[in-house]
Amino acid sequence: MVPPADAGTSFRPVGAVTTGASPNRTPDGHIYWDADLLESELDQFFYRNWLCVGRAEELAKTGDYQTRKVGRESVLLVRDSSGGVRGFYNLCRHRGTRVVLEDSGQGAKSFICPYHAWSYDLEGRLIGAPHMRGQTDFARKDYGLHPIRVDTWGGFLWVNLEPRGPSLQEELGPFFQRFDRFPLSTLRLGGRQVYEVDANWKIIVENFSECYHCAPVHPSLNRLTPYLSGDNDASFQQKTGRSLFSGGFMEFAQDFQSMTRSGYTTRPRITGMTAEDKKRVYYYVLFPNTFFSLHPDYLMIHHGWPTSPSHTRVENEFYFTPEAIARPDFDPSDAIGLWDEINRQDWTVCELAQEGMRSRAWNGGRYSDQEELVRDFDEFVVGEYGRRGPSSPHSQ
Amino acid sequence: MVPPADAGTSFRPVGAVTTGASPNRTPDGHIYWDADLLESELDQFFYRNWLCVGRAEELAKTGDYQTRKVGRESVLLVRDSSGGVRGFYNLCRHRGTRVVLEDSGQGAKSFICPYHAWSYDLEGRLIGAPHMRGQTDFARKDYGLHPIRVDTWGGFLWVNLEPRGPSLQEELGPFFQRFDRFPLSTLRLGGRQVYEVDANWKIIVENFSECYHCAPVHPSLNRLTPYLSGDNDASFQQKTGRSLFSGGFMEFAQDFQSMTRSGYTTRPRITGMTAEDKKRVYYYVLFPNTFFSLHPDYLMIHHGWPTSPSHTRVENEFYFTPEAIARPDFDPSDAIGLWDEINRQDWTVCELAQEGMRSRAWNGGRYSDQEELVRDFDEFVVGEYGRRGPSSPHSQ
Amino acid sequence: MVPPADAGTSFRPVGAVTTGASPNRTPDGHIYWDADLLESELDQFFYRNWLCVGRAEELAKTGDYQTRKVGRESVLLVRDSSGGVRGFYNLCRHRGTRVVLEDSGQGAKSFICPYHAWSYDLEGRLIGAPHMRGQTDFARKDYGLHPIRVDTWGGFLWVNLEPRGPSLQEELGPFFQRFDRFPLSTLRLGGRQVYEVDANWKIIVENFSECYHCAPVHPSLNRLTPYLSGDNDASFQQKTGRSLFSGGFMEFAQDFQSMTRSGYTTRPRITGMTAEDKKRVYYYVLFPNTFFSLHPDYLMIHHGWPTSPSHTRVENEFYFTPEAIARPDFDPSDAIGLWDEINRQDWTVCELAQEGMRSRAWNGGRYSDQEELVRDFDEFVVGEYGRRGPSSPHSQ
Repeated sequence: MVPPADAGTSFRPVGAVTTGASPNRTPDGHIYWDADLLESELDQFFYRNWLCVGRAEELAKTGDYQTRKVGRESVLLVRDSSGGVRGFYNLCRHRGTRVVLEDSGQGAKSFICPYHAWSYDLEGRLIGAPHMRGQTDFARKDYGLHPIRVDTWGGFLWVNLEPRGPSLQEELGPFFQRFDRFPLSTLRLGGRQVYEVDANWKIIVENFSECYHCAPVHPSLNRLTPYLSGDNDASFQQKTGRSLFSGGFMEFAQDFQSMTRSGYTTRPRITGMTAEDKKRVYYYVLFPNTFFSLHPDYLMIHHGWPTSPSHTRVENEFYFTPEAIARPDFDPSDAIGLWDEINRQDWTVCELAQEGMRSRAWNGGRYSDQEELVRDFDEFVVGEYGRRGPSSPHSQ
Repeated sequence: MVPPADAGTSFRPVGAVTTGASPNRTPDGHIYWDADLLESELDQFFYRNWLCVGRAEELAKTGDYQTRKVGRESVLLVRDSSGGVRGFYNLCRHRGTRVVLEDSGQGAKSFICPYHAWSYDLEGRLIGAPHMRGQTDFARKDYGLHPIRVDTWGGFLWVNLEPRGPSLQEELGPFFQRFDRFPLSTLRLGGRQVYEVDANWKIIVENFSECYHCAPVHPSLNRLTPYLSGDNDASFQQKTGRSLFSGGFMEFAQDFQSMTRSGYTTRPRITGMTAEDKKRVYYYVLFPNTFFSLHPDYLMIHHGWPTSPSHTRVENEFYFTPEAIARPDFDPSDAIGLWDEINRQDWTVCELAQEGMRSRAWNGGRYSDQEELVRDFDEFVVGEYGRRGPSSPHSQ
Repeated sequence: MVPPADAGTSFRPVGAVTTGASPNRTPDGHIYWDADLLESELDQFFYRNWLCVGRAEELAKTGDYQTRKVGRESVLLVRDSSGGVRGFYNLCRHRGTRVVLEDSGQGAKSFICPYHAWSYDLEGRLIGAPHMRGQTDFARKDYGLHPIRVDTWGGFLWVNLEPRGPSLQEELGPFFQRFDRFPLSTLRLGGRQVYEVDANWKIIVENFSECYHCAPVHPSLNRLTPYLSGDNDASFQQKTGRSLFSGGFMEFAQDFQSMTRSGYTTRPRITGMTAEDKKRVYYYVLFPNTFFSLHPDYLMIHHGWPTSPSHTRVENEFYFTPEAIARPDFDPSDAIGLWDEINRQDWTVCELAQEGMRSRAWNGGRYSDQEELVRDFDEFVVGEYGRRGPSSPHSQ
């Protein structure tokens, strides 16, 4: 298993690391199982960063809406009267009841709380609240649904539960610039899979951030894109040039064309793919919980949603070109099937790593030359802890 | 959904409210999901107030007994040798074992612990404890079952796990006076239903304390007793005139006679019902967990037992007159069926309200003009927190 | 149920007791349900004492191995190249992954981590770690599997997760001396049963430490070995003559020969059994979680593994002589069946005692004259709390 002495590295070192008990050590095990820490991570990371939560085309017309679970929160997304997309906490201002119960719907004119029938328009304004005349210090204009910031890029809907702060472009602009040349907003969903994984969400990010494990764990992947192929492009950083994304690319061996069971595809490539692009798969993590994997002929997205320190729900989506989907023989299973195999292999080893994090003997591990992006992620996460105080999102 | 401007209110305002982050706000969300707070509530509210736990007729003869779960405790109720009802912790004084395992039994002469056979008579005295001769500082008279205060009213058995404190009459006498004119002790159980509800026990009390939700949630109820009918009578208070009950009445529309699927009944009315009573349903909450709902022809009781901050087991019982039950065509399903529908509608909205209590955006809601009794309950509960120190029920 | 006044006691008093709220009282209930305390007990008791975890004959040849769960830890036991047995944390030094997944295996040459293929030899040395050339401060010799102390006695494998401290002989030598005269290492497993018990592990130890409950709970046992028979031999002590074992013997009534359904056996007795031994069953607790019960014709072992404050997994094993097993009509069910009955009776009363430990009225119980060993165990446990500071097993 020991590689030849001149195997070198395909990852560029990025900065010094002091995340663990000593330099070069992986972080303390407790960050992977501490329940209080997860609460803090939800507050600091998931509720204060831009999260990719859906597709704009799913809210096609005014009154179309969706609800999405984000940590403990339920988020309501709606196409408003002027054609924009708005986001709200799905939370009646009267007694805290969930206002919208269904996952999605179309053509709503207003939202009526099922408990006491307070009603809100598509802009979130409180338009009905019976029997409030006797209440002092009450004006309907102060009791609209709590707004959530929404933005779009690449056809995706992004939300940020923190009312103030950098825009989506300020946070992820440098990432978007790498892929603005592709018409990603024209892609359409071709398949979706959900996995329940008994591992901390960060172990899943770490797993995605290196291919050191690809030879032992993923023979199918390693055949198509050998683990030493490719290069890193960007990594998480919080000091100079704060960066919220991390990733690089891998290259196809031989004449392979895509990540499919055969390694080949008859699907049209995404418009804008250069000859270089067609030999690559681009893999990026967008902090905290989105994985972006652009293949020549499709885009794969993972979302990781922690439900406990040792459990993560992973949603995996596949987007194809309209041309591919329109073909009578469209069949995405060659791609989805391969990734289902790879995903399951990953969850197995993530779960085995999770188990060790509670060992009394675990005092941190060591990064290999192939795990620079893991190290950067770990350093970034530990640096983020406590960077900001507790949030108080809504003063009204 | 907005009512006419002159709709007025059917609830009388009671006192100022400062329960939440600011005046007029509903309490902080954490009181509905904090696990430590529930422990405190069990200690302060459930173990130190009079709780309605059974019916006297179910312990008909000397030696008849029941066990009842009260919070984490198991309570043993028994008809003793002189015909009174006694209550005990179901807890052997030797090693803490549950002494009685069955829910009920008849004609016991003594209770023998299944572990080491310590035995107790019907008065709770330790009458058998083998191999204790070598133990210093031990006398059987000091090791009887720990007694629990028991009292009766209206045919119901009430217990109070705190050894000292006000009597049942001192606590609830003013409530009892309202209904002493009815022969409630002659009523008999006609049906019983148990619900498991994913909501904090206080949300269920709040739900019972207002009919603001009746139009949107309970069309069947609202048809028989319109939500603006009736009036409030009493509310929780802890300052001047400490009051442990809250409630009022609603009035039947048209010529409706009772809460049944049809709105009519052929059952005889409970003795003592005046013409006014026959047009009303009386609804009261007895702090902390009993709902008393007197209809012209039957009495409905709810008990709410919290099992976690977000879960409550609700027992719902229906008591009818002996005359009604004796009829060959006695069928309580017209009443029980209607209330089963109403109950389930309530649990649904209670569960939706519970979900919002953990939202980071929830900073308290607003009471409507129809929710004075909710406001009084919330104010009372928040005022009770920490009013008394930790309990130390048994010094021996 | 009251015994005759001259029943006396078969247990010798050992020292004064101040474990509970007052002298002579059993400990506070919280030690049986406090989750933080269980963590401390795992750290202080289970990870720092010698634990009996297996049989040497199950690792017959070089490369044979087993994994065993010890508290939250996974322990790897392996027969090494020079024929000794070694123990390791089953934890890859790279990223903490479980290295060996199966319960047991044979003839391994090395152990390869399933995640990134770091590999270890049978002595735990890191022999393969790809792509580490760029890492400073890294030498393979520093990254072997974390070793765990292993020793053997009576054919059993014992581990101690604390790297330094007294040897197995120093800890349990006085116990071993009592049974060195028997060829226990020649015995072989004849049956095994696992129970899931809803009681704290200490309640199960307490239950094993007295036969005061045998008359009411175990009529079959009490018929063969009356509860007042026998005598105590040793008890837990931490002051003068620190002792980590506790126990004594019971005597067969009439002409009974063993603990079997009939009370008789045709199996050959274990070599070395004297006439006196043949009339006895020896019962010992080895702190914290092994019960050793030597019968004339077989050895019974219980291991108790806490999984929560109120849950214990109990493994029960039966070892017989090779002569008995070799017989064509060997049938251990007369012994195992009887003990299965007795075990289940015990778990029932243990679970009933567990329930009472959370009662607000529970202020400690009283020991009888028959429960000296329970008192000694309780006193020992409470004395051990906080005796040692937190552990830091591996500085590397």
